[in-house]
Amino acid sequence: MTMNESMHLSKQFDEDLTGLRTHVLEMGGLVEAQIRAAIDVYANGDTAMVKDIVENDHRVNGFEKIIDEETIHIVAKRQPTASDLRLVMGITKIVTDLERIGDEAKKIAKGARRVHENGQLTVPRATDVRHVADEAVEMLRKALDSFARLDTALATEVIHADVNVDTEFKALVRQLITYMMEDPRTITTAIDIVWICRSIERIGDHAKNVAENVIYIAEGRDIRHIGKEA
Amino acid sequence: MTMNESMHLSKQFDEDLTGLRTHVLEMGGLVEAQIRAAIDVYANGDTAMVKDIVENDHRVNGFEKIIDEETIHIVAKRQPTASDLRLVMGITKIVTDLERIGDEAKKIAKGARRVHENGQLTVPRATDVRHVADEAVEMLRKALDSFARLDTALATEVIHADVNVDTEFKALVRQLITYMMEDPRTITTAIDIVWICRSIERIGDHAKNVAENVIYIAEGRDIRHIGKEA
Repeated sequence: MTMNESMHLSKQFDEDLTGLRTHVLEMGGLVEAQIRAAIDVYANGDTAMVKDIVENDHRVNGFEKIIDEETIHIVAKRQPTASDLRLVMGITKIVTDLERIGDEAKKIAKGARRVHENGQLTVPRATDVRHVADEAVEMLRKALDSFARLDTALATEVIHADVNVDTEFKALVRQLITYMMEDPRTITTAIDIVWICRSIERIGDHAKNVAENVIYIAEGRDIRHIGKEA
Repeated sequence: MTMNESMHLSKQFDEDLTGLRTHVLEMGGLVEAQIRAAIDVYANGDTAMVKDIVENDHRVNGFEKIIDEETIHIVAKRQPTASDLRLVMGITKIVTDLERIGDEAKKIAKGARRVHENGQLTVPRATDVRHVADEAVEMLRKALDSFARLDTALATEVIHADVNVDTEFKALVRQLITYMMEDPRTITTAIDIVWICRSIERIGDHAKNVAENVIYIAEGRDIRHIGKEA
């Protein structure tokens, strides 16, 4: 092989990796927009948007398939090693979490539609729910940023933020239980709101997983499960 | 390279793959035992077991790390292609689902302990909960079997079974809501049981994901999201 051919192959490889990273970020951007839209349905009652959110989830799933195919292609053809291999394997994991965030966005949208259709949104939790949702979206946004720049300090910030989302989630559920006890007629709607809160909490978990994979990609350290409680 | 060396390398590679598959099955067996134990805590009130379940979850997490490391090692050193590569990449996905099933088992165990400690298990759902839990465990068992034998017919069975678990889950939640409405004092415990049911439903989803990956490994077809509802 001449030097030129070798450089060409390497350039091709770089382009493959750049394409892969771009697709992950596009998928991440779409998923972030999906959560924001789903929370808007809940907060503003714009239930006409639910159809679009469900439609867009097919695009999220399409991204997952394409990125997984690209990953396999790169491993088979380019035989990456060291940091390139970590990038590719880390992306395989990240894409699964992004797809599941997309699922949660769809669930939030459908649950929010049920809440509004039941016409019982007297539960005074819309602001609180939006607050924890904003935190979860912020975790995702930072996790994607940390991926784009391989910024492990930012990824670490995301990992630490998850405990706040968990705490607020538990407080919301306690509030909703109190509400249900005071007025059992609201139980059905309150349970739907509990599911919405749960989905938000899961989004935080998935964003944390993304951030853990960014640290793995950047440093080769597997920091999952470190310091997990008993 | 002599023929002997070539055969030796290939034998080494086969041993790596066999070791990897064995570890996945060991992890799967452990996770299955964890769910069974967690459901026993709920059904029988043997809350002393919760500590063991939480301890064992560290073993589950340890398996995930080891298998991910083995996967990376195999990709880097053996440069697998075609079906070998699909096996390795499929395992990367499967292990994530097994780890999350382990998390759900831990959540079930802790939730069941809260239910029994609150001393309010008058909710007549223990049999129904066990029934859907048995179905989810059966899905996991079959998914692992289908992985062990690369049996796509069995994997397809698992994928179809998920809708039953989802339906039973929804019916259980409806029953629990009725129960809460009739006697609001049970709401706190009923919500804990709702979470337990939710975890069981998630185990079904994860088992389905494992089965989808078995089909991908065996046939190279990515059947995720096919026929998903709108």
